[in-house]
Amino acid sequence: MTLTVGVDIGGTKIAAGVVGEGGQVLARSRTRSPATDPPEIVRTIGELVRGLVAGLPEGSEVEAVGASAAGFVDKQRSTLVFAPNLAWRDEPLRDHLERELDLPVVIENDANAAAWGEFRFGAGEDVDNLLMLTIGTGVGGGVVLDGELGRGGFGMGGEVGHITMVPDGVPCGCGNLGCLESYGSGSALVRTTREHAATDPGAAALLEQAGGDVEKITGPMVTAAAAAGDAFATARVVELGEWIGRGVATLTAVLDPNVVVIGGGVSEAGDLLLDPIRDSFARHVTGRGHRPLAEVRGALLGNAGGIVGVADLARRR
Amino acid sequence: MTLTVGVDIGGTKIAAGVVGEGGQVLARSRTRSPATDPPEIVRTIGELVRGLVAGLPEGSEVEAVGASAAGFVDKQRSTLVFAPNLAWRDEPLRDHLERELDLPVVIENDANAAAWGEFRFGAGEDVDNLLMLTIGTGVGGGVVLDGELGRGGFGMGGEVGHITMVPDGVPCGCGNLGCLESYGSGSALVRTTREHAATDPGAAALLEQAGGDVEKITGPMVTAAAAAGDAFATARVVELGEWIGRGVATLTAVLDPNVVVIGGGVSEAGDLLLDPIRDSFARHVTGRGHRPLAEVRGALLGNAGGIVGVADLARRR
Amino acid sequence: MTLTVGVDIGGTKIAAGVVGEGGQVLARSRTRSPATDPPEIVRTIGELVRGLVAGLPEGSEVEAVGASAAGFVDKQRSTLVFAPNLAWRDEPLRDHLERELDLPVVIENDANAAAWGEFRFGAGEDVDNLLMLTIGTGVGGGVVLDGELGRGGFGMGGEVGHITMVPDGVPCGCGNLGCLESYGSGSALVRTTREHAATDPGAAALLEQAGGDVEKITGPMVTAAAAAGDAFATARVVELGEWIGRGVATLTAVLDPNVVVIGGGVSEAGDLLLDPIRDSFARHVTGRGHRPLAEVRGALLGNAGGIVGVADLARRR
Amino acid sequence: MTLTVGVDIGGTKIAAGVVGEGGQVLARSRTRSPATDPPEIVRTIGELVRGLVAGLPEGSEVEAVGASAAGFVDKQRSTLVFAPNLAWRDEPLRDHLERELDLPVVIENDANAAAWGEFRFGAGEDVDNLLMLTIGTGVGGGVVLDGELGRGGFGMGGEVGHITMVPDGVPCGCGNLGCLESYGSGSALVRTTREHAATDPGAAALLEQAGGDVEKITGPMVTAAAAAGDAFATARVVELGEWIGRGVATLTAVLDPNVVVIGGGVSEAGDLLLDPIRDSFARHVTGRGHRPLAEVRGALLGNAGGIVGVADLARRR
Repeated sequence: MTLTVGVDIGGTKIAAGVVGEGGQVLARSRTRSPATDPPEIVRTIGELVRGLVAGLPEGSEVEAVGASAAGFVDKQRSTLVFAPNLAWRDEPLRDHLERELDLPVVIENDANAAAWGEFRFGAGEDVDNLLMLTIGTGVGGGVVLDGELGRGGFGMGGEVGHITMVPDGVPCGCGNLGCLESYGSGSALVRTTREHAATDPGAAALLEQAGGDVEKITGPMVTAAAAAGDAFATARVVELGEWIGRGVATLTAVLDPNVVVIGGGVSEAGDLLLDPIRDSFARHVTGRGHRPLAEVRGALLGNAGGIVGVADLARRR
Repeated sequence: MTLTVGVDIGGTKIAAGVVGEGGQVLARSRTRSPATDPPEIVRTIGELVRGLVAGLPEGSEVEAVGASAAGFVDKQRSTLVFAPNLAWRDEPLRDHLERELDLPVVIENDANAAAWGEFRFGAGEDVDNLLMLTIGTGVGGGVVLDGELGRGGFGMGGEVGHITMVPDGVPCGCGNLGCLESYGSGSALVRTTREHAATDPGAAALLEQAGGDVEKITGPMVTAAAAAGDAFATARVVELGEWIGRGVATLTAVLDPNVVVIGGGVSEAGDLLLDPIRDSFARHVTGRGHRPLAEVRGALLGNAGGIVGVADLARRR
Repeated sequence: MTLTVGVDIGGTKIAAGVVGEGGQVLARSRTRSPATDPPEIVRTIGELVRGLVAGLPEGSEVEAVGASAAGFVDKQRSTLVFAPNLAWRDEPLRDHLERELDLPVVIENDANAAAWGEFRFGAGEDVDNLLMLTIGTGVGGGVVLDGELGRGGFGMGGEVGHITMVPDGVPCGCGNLGCLESYGSGSALVRTTREHAATDPGAAALLEQAGGDVEKITGPMVTAAAAAGDAFATARVVELGEWIGRGVATLTAVLDPNVVVIGGGVSEAGDLLLDPIRDSFARHVTGRGHRPLAEVRGALLGNAGGIVGVADLARRR
Repeated sequence: MTLTVGVDIGGTKIAAGVVGEGGQVLARSRTRSPATDPPEIVRTIGELVRGLVAGLPEGSEVEAVGASAAGFVDKQRSTLVFAPNLAWRDEPLRDHLERELDLPVVIENDANAAAWGEFRFGAGEDVDNLLMLTIGTGVGGGVVLDGELGRGGFGMGGEVGHITMVPDGVPCGCGNLGCLESYGSGSALVRTTREHAATDPGAAALLEQAGGDVEKITGPMVTAAAAAGDAFATARVVELGEWIGRGVATLTAVLDPNVVVIGGGVSEAGDLLLDPIRDSFARHVTGRGHRPLAEVRGALLGNAGGIVGVADLARRR
């Protein structure tokens, strides 16, 4: 059996895993990310991967490595064109890693990698067309069309968090106004919860948990309170789902996926979030009543999805 | 040389053409459309195609037929699921045409067919990833990704005119509020021009052409006046382009095309319309300054694009 | 005791009442409206008023007449500048009525008259600053500031239904896009209910009442179903209240009323509508948490409010 | 001749002036503001006013003092309920100042005071109904209706900068989303100019003035560049005026003023800003074509308007 390694380069940590042909993770490891120092990151990945390989049973062979990061990756999957969290520009990451590892390397956007992971081995295993949204601090995502990862003409497609939802709307980190990320992300959940909590008496219980300080309310606090039946917190999660469902409706007009997979930290809220997404999607999609609707499902691979996905992409390089 | 035939089934007429491998149209014909009577349409297409074939030089052989119509076509490209202009529902058009013509038949959405035509033989011949918007009464469109037509998981993708631009915005024929079609179509151009003309003294010249009746202002009147330098009409075309450019920006976040092709009747305004689209697109796309931008080009094949495209799809069936 | 008469000129009927100093209606009468024929309307009002006066107890004296209609009334309260339902333009109604009736006459916008009625004898009797919204086919309204009716510099103020809620939003009968009337009126309630009913299975019960035809759903049907506990209908009324509450919040930034009175046919839904208005208002008003909030109350005078109000304005002429 | 004193309490300075019956400023003085220390502010105002009075010609008599500040003032014009810049809550400023000065005192919101100044002695001297917008860092304003200052039922009316322009729009300092202040203020001008300058090559000249750093672009830089004919800067000022004009249109639906006065620092751009406001207002007001339109004029009193206004309000206490 041939193996590949997937590496997820984040702003605070780097995680790696050895992945089999069926998507199984045979070994995992992680370390702190020397985020803003590309040569140091390359060395760190070298150590991480060599450590993992050294621990494999005799006879195991790693044939390629996939590495993912948040940012724009070029069409050749070799250069990280722009990675805001890592402060990188036009970094020829593939060449550097291939030299360090002496193995073939493929670079991919992290949300694309996660979408591919869910498509191959997770919530979208049974279909050919999949849309994934990763609801974390921001809104990432990926698109699989007729079994191929939709990377776009310059490699920068699938930025589903940056479709415009509201003209002249809430500013987004990307420089635009009114992106889906401004309304459908974990950050948006926190922002709107704090806004409401400042004046809504119904927020009392949640506010108490935050020590009476609206600025100390966090996303996990809101979803946990919603899961425990708090009406105020539930209303905030429903609002979040309403926005995401509107985004899914617009994306469906273009992509018409068979399945929509919702991942990322906020998606751990499960049906509390998924049901409002389904409801909003069904109310806003064009041609409703005259078309089959994609199923909206929770992601299955959790935060291993990116590693599994990029390892599989390395195998298919 | 093998030939295929493309057929464009419209609400008022049916057009057909014999198309060579290189996209050249060898013969064309058209007739009135018995729009709401599917069996009669099948017979009419039969006559039209047989007439064209009969006129071909000896030794010519037609190997397949492609037929396109506005509406949802299923993933198997055999059934017209929903065609508002033709009042059809779940019509197994491929089977009926194959029986009538005794040739293999492929069904495709008309805007997809036009996009494919431009991709293969027109304004997008040089790239692998293309987005086409057809600006007519409505806004149609099609998507080519890595050389494949993006049809979606159920065959209903590429409805780029029905992304939501304005939440709770101007009602669209599709039943949603605020679609791109509500702001970026020829109908929207006429609607906003009439609205402004009712109270804007600058509309005097245009209004005179319409016999003093705002309700008699037409789209071609507006684009012709703009082409002749009329400031009021130009402002309306610029507004239209502003909206289309915003739509292209959102679509680019997802699709990242190499080229955006603008077709349809309104696109005959040329750079009068394309320049505002380019300008608005560049101002609204996510990641601007950090990414290559798709070129925005006018369509090259005019209204033959659909016939050429669907004929080529029949060849590649 | 001196009496005045109030006349309400509508598109389908004309109603009149004799009103005492305390706002009590001593006698009422109504007749069909010869809407588009101003001289005939003047004669009809003449008959109506003389009939009422003839029936009064001996010794009663009518000192003045107030007449209200939907439309713009000039600052001198004498001319109906523009009345869309009556197809009138610049009609010197006061002069014509004074000649017909041989009594002093005051003309007022109908929604202003209703607001004045509620201010003097109804839901706003206890305060000096009142905002009234009349939720009927459209959204009318009136403003009382420090005990004076806010008529504006040209007599056309108080058109609270035509503040813009959504830029480039749903077209309004006034020619603008996105007015409060487009979202907060009885017509909007019907429009959105029909839209949803077309595809929402939850609408089954309501749809059955309408004989299975979404186009036969009416406003009273929706509010009655909501009153009976139908979840789908309730959701529509809540949405309506959400929009009205947002409108009240914007109006409060400018006017800061002590009381907001909600009248008009749709307001008969009572707290079903008022509670969502209160909730939305409290969530959207600027400076919330740092200011006293106006109470939101239902109107008390029903459709007599306009007659009572305009009769009182005639008394204070 | 009796005199009154107007005091303008700002976050960085306190200015005062002795004002005659005709609005003439006879003497002025200013000092640094001990902003967050109310007792110290009261003492500082005491010194400032006594100093001014001491310098008046013999026989002059000051009969009352008006003091204005940004914030909510209660209906009795005695308490500063909430003043964000001064960090005051429920401060009984009138009582403290009367004790300090031994003169009758009136407290007023600063934008209301400026509106009253323009109404009595400035750009609105000839009319009874006036709307003023003060375009500075934020958007303030005031309303005069039939010759009376519109203070609302709780004293907090006239907050014209906090009408909602865009649902779910750009966050405002007041806690709401999408206020006029978010789009029509000097801060908005700077924000949008910086956004555009980051990617628009047309911004080169302006950017050079800012030393190549978009974050160093200021409002006066933009209006000066626009005045000098810079196309990029002009476009930004036009956009600002477009938003303000939309706001004026919504406010006119409610208030129907005879004159709209535009003041504040940004209004020094004159017709560069006023013309786009006029144009946008005329295109967006309800009932256009059927109503007289308010004239849009620049303020005449500059930053003395507040002092003159509040001094006059003290006279009419």
